[in-house]
Amino acid sequence: MLEQLLSESASPRLLGAMRYAALGAGKRLRPFLVIESARLFNVPAANALRVGAALECVHCYSLVHDDLPAMDDDDLRRGKPTAHKKFDEATAILAGDSLLTLAFEILAGADTHPDAAVRSALVFELAKASGVNGMAGGQMLDIEAEAGAAQTLDSIIRIQTHKTGALFRFACEAGAIMAGADRAPLRRYADDIGLAFQITDDLLDMESSPQALGKATQKDLQRGKATIASLMGRTAAAEKAENLVASAIAALTPYGGKADTLREAARFIVSRKK
Amino acid sequence: MLEQLLSESASPRLLGAMRYAALGAGKRLRPFLVIESARLFNVPAANALRVGAALECVHCYSLVHDDLPAMDDDDLRRGKPTAHKKFDEATAILAGDSLLTLAFEILAGADTHPDAAVRSALVFELAKASGVNGMAGGQMLDIEAEAGAAQTLDSIIRIQTHKTGALFRFACEAGAIMAGADRAPLRRYADDIGLAFQITDDLLDMESSPQALGKATQKDLQRGKATIASLMGRTAAAEKAENLVASAIAALTPYGGKADTLREAARFIVSRKK
Repeated sequence: MLEQLLSESASPRLLGAMRYAALGAGKRLRPFLVIESARLFNVPAANALRVGAALECVHCYSLVHDDLPAMDDDDLRRGKPTAHKKFDEATAILAGDSLLTLAFEILAGADTHPDAAVRSALVFELAKASGVNGMAGGQMLDIEAEAGAAQTLDSIIRIQTHKTGALFRFACEAGAIMAGADRAPLRRYADDIGLAFQITDDLLDMESSPQALGKATQKDLQRGKATIASLMGRTAAAEKAENLVASAIAALTPYGGKADTLREAARFIVSRKK
Repeated sequence: MLEQLLSESASPRLLGAMRYAALGAGKRLRPFLVIESARLFNVPAANALRVGAALECVHCYSLVHDDLPAMDDDDLRRGKPTAHKKFDEATAILAGDSLLTLAFEILAGADTHPDAAVRSALVFELAKASGVNGMAGGQMLDIEAEAGAAQTLDSIIRIQTHKTGALFRFACEAGAIMAGADRAPLRRYADDIGLAFQITDDLLDMESSPQALGKATQKDLQRGKATIASLMGRTAAAEKAENLVASAIAALTPYGGKADTLREAARFIVSRKK
């Protein structure tokens, strides 16, 4: 789907950088959550795929910009050079900008949903989740925290709720938005797995290798940066992640057997090795 | 309107940078065109103001990112330090990202238009105008042109049609989109004034001072960069701009006296001193 949506551009160089950043080795966890949440309500897969593609564009734009020298200054992403290393900084900035923009073009496109009110709601919710009160705000808080005073568990959780939680929430609620259904159970599921995902990321950063992970590790440690896992300790953090997964799975009760794949996804999130 | 829309954030620092970039000394030419095009069709001003605010967010995001060291590396914008000089690069990148995102949140918001199909169309058209096949694509082409072979008049016009023309087109068509009216006359008007605006920018860059313009001048000359004005020569370029203004004014004939302010705007665009 995303392959098709990334096929036309005034600038082949810019399109190439967008494709480099968005296609390939990613886990595609967020589009998967969109598709599975849509399946709960029998939303056609063709619609869900477009919403998943839009969300992946936002996720990949955020990786490209976060990797920039002025931000996290990372050279490696998914085992390959980061976009600004493969191309250059200007191209990476524009590729990120263009992926973010494309996300909203996809959502507003007539093929995404027959009801314009749903398309409009999808745009509104994804924009809120991505912007100053969502992911981008969380990234700023994270940068400020690195430069500032000692962090508490609460302040770190607040940062992560914005930085990574908001997109997870959109991913899981997307099916309900497309179906005009109650979003509350999926929101609880999303918030639980979002935090579990982050704790697992912290643990992987502490325990894994760049070879296994496809990106630099022990970054937080080297920067003296507190994480949920480092503040709680490894054992307590792993236990917390397990409890969150149990809570996430419990939230899916209203959907019966239809939600089995989402249950597996919750378990995968804490057991993954990369 | 934009003042109100920029009042809430998880990160006061990020909000501050967004406000710094978007509020203040700008010409607000694009929102003005939205409001005037809406007036032709008796679209309520409250709706037009939100669309204008969204468009200004996109315009200001593009200035913040274009000014970055990896792009045009400008220190001065509207007579003040550029966003990355006033704050830092990471904050400027995130402020640009967040302004772009906010634009789509505004457009998709229920207050923008009672008809969700119109909101969705506004999102779709603004995203197309801003992205890889519009403004961002044009900026990439412009960067490639600076690094590459000698430019022709046609290739430069193609770059400018993308880089600055696409947002002008959205601004002028917005009223017709909100009213569900024919967009063709406003598209012609937009394309004419967009090119006239660019030629005037070229001429001001050649002839004005940083004090008068509030930003660096003679940049194109110093970089040995061909512009429409430099390739045509000043006299022929000024004449071309005048002809475009006449053509733009002619395109407004269907709207009678209601379009008088847009006629004045076309004249202002070539007579402005900054």
